[in-house]
Amino acid sequence: MSSPVSTLPHPDAIRTVLALVHSGLTRVESSLTHLSETDDAILAPMLSAVLPGSGKRLRPALALLIGRMSAATADADALNQMAVGVELLHTASLVHDDIVDESDTRHGGATLYARVGNALAVLVGDYLFSQAAQACVATGNLHVVRLFAETLGAMAQGQIDDANRVLGGRHSWEALSRERYYRTIGGKTASLFVLACQGTGLLTGLDAPQVNALRVYGENLGLAFQVFDDILDFTATEAELGKPVGSDLRQGTITLPVILMRDVADGRFRAAFETEDVDLQVRLVQESGAIPLALSEAETLVARARAALLELPAGVERDALDALAAYVTHRTQ
Amino acid sequence: MSSPVSTLPHPDAIRTVLALVHSGLTRVESSLTHLSETDDAILAPMLSAVLPGSGKRLRPALALLIGRMSAATADADALNQMAVGVELLHTASLVHDDIVDESDTRHGGATLYARVGNALAVLVGDYLFSQAAQACVATGNLHVVRLFAETLGAMAQGQIDDANRVLGGRHSWEALSRERYYRTIGGKTASLFVLACQGTGLLTGLDAPQVNALRVYGENLGLAFQVFDDILDFTATEAELGKPVGSDLRQGTITLPVILMRDVADGRFRAAFETEDVDLQVRLVQESGAIPLALSEAETLVARARAALLELPAGVERDALDALAAYVTHRTQ
Repeated sequence: MSSPVSTLPHPDAIRTVLALVHSGLTRVESSLTHLSETDDAILAPMLSAVLPGSGKRLRPALALLIGRMSAATADADALNQMAVGVELLHTASLVHDDIVDESDTRHGGATLYARVGNALAVLVGDYLFSQAAQACVATGNLHVVRLFAETLGAMAQGQIDDANRVLGGRHSWEALSRERYYRTIGGKTASLFVLACQGTGLLTGLDAPQVNALRVYGENLGLAFQVFDDILDFTATEAELGKPVGSDLRQGTITLPVILMRDVADGRFRAAFETEDVDLQVRLVQESGAIPLALSEAETLVARARAALLELPAGVERDALDALAAYVTHRTQ
Repeated sequence: MSSPVSTLPHPDAIRTVLALVHSGLTRVESSLTHLSETDDAILAPMLSAVLPGSGKRLRPALALLIGRMSAATADADALNQMAVGVELLHTASLVHDDIVDESDTRHGGATLYARVGNALAVLVGDYLFSQAAQACVATGNLHVVRLFAETLGAMAQGQIDDANRVLGGRHSWEALSRERYYRTIGGKTASLFVLACQGTGLLTGLDAPQVNALRVYGENLGLAFQVFDDILDFTATEAELGKPVGSDLRQGTITLPVILMRDVADGRFRAAFETEDVDLQVRLVQESGAIPLALSEAETLVARARAALLELPAGVERDALDALAAYVTHRTQ
């Protein structure tokens, strides 16, 4: 599947993809803005701080693209609710993640946690979970709602795994496990991509092999997305990241580059790694050859995502999903 | 409707009610225990700390009683999921409430927040929301799931109102509003009683006037329950409460007895009330005549709940719901 779209330089590819679903994304944006314009004078400014105009809207774009693939014209209202529901669930989880990580900034701006404090941020996250659930219910499809409810659980479980990676023993050399890493990011990141992809397939009545292909696409795309995020934490600049290089390690979070560094190093860096010198640890990861290895794992995941697309009908939407998968490992942020 | 059940001494009335749904409650308990026996070694002990064997199971009992009222035999599995879903939602909200209130103890035991800290308690609450949603989805009824999703939002909004009552200006004399109080407790407490009652009516296919009557019953029962809780905070002993008398006021939370005290006092206690002497403030509320007035409001709500029951078919289940309503204002904890 060497589509013309996927051979374009990637920034252009993404522009082409987003142009396909431009009107759908505009409607999603307007639904999110509408949600933040509640009469509740306490809630409204907090919702306005997290809902409108923020983020790449990658997950709604996936839902909208897949919504165009069904032979029957998908119900535009239901599809909008699906895209909105996925983005609301993403936003809710970010609000709670920032509490868990005690993060004061995200993409250069103050987090809701930093603005309104722990208590209100917990409750606004809960309110957003409710709005996400209501949007999924408004699709009218119980299969979609079931997947939504399971996704919420998988995300929480992934985050608990993640928090525990941090809380249980900092930087323990033996504790670094690939299986655990992939299980964690499967829950905290990939499950939401699965909801966007498989959920929209269920909603628009694609057949079972196609819905399954979308699940495989979403799962691998989500894993690749997170692996590449974890690579960027070592390779991007502080300006691109909006936070110090090596932030994960500074927080005590073990990601794939660190695990691969251990395997490559074969014991050589162990002593250095068990010190408290995080700058040295970051440099060890950067110079160990672990980064190209991690990138290669991300590319393998992208290839799996792209291969799954062969089950789906050929067309501009499939090409766009292909281009999106290729884009995931060619971002700078 | 002066049923024989409701004229019994109340502890006996409750025993009679619970005996009616004993097998259903046993099944709910076993479902909750089963949920806590997950393979996830991190999650299992945290779930075991909050799920099995705790609480009065009042909300599942409501669902199970109402499940027996339908002419057609209700699907026992779906009804169990409904009762489990309501209790899980209740548990999830308690886990997050304890974070919001920074509460270390509940009913004499350590809260999850105290045991595992802020970050994990946020995530376990989210996981429980997911399990609650999955149980509601497993009823197979999209109307029930819609009501669940709306309830989650109403509860969060009520808690946000509540947190803001505390955070915005301590004890401000003018800020005390009955409307605001009832709106807050309607969201944070009564909405869950509505889900248990109206939701089960929807699930078992009662007709529209009966479902509406269950909504009115649940709403008024929930409001009465919370008003009486707020009265107990001034009238019960520290041993019964498991926390100091007047805890709400000590946290800066304004409840109905305080609002009625202001109205009764007609300005006389204003100066004293705007000091920081909480012991004095508690005594003012206790001695102002506000407590009997608040009790009378609770009794009015109970009477409204009981009156709504007239729309429902006569029988032991209706008598039991009547007795439960009467019990709400005759508890010691």
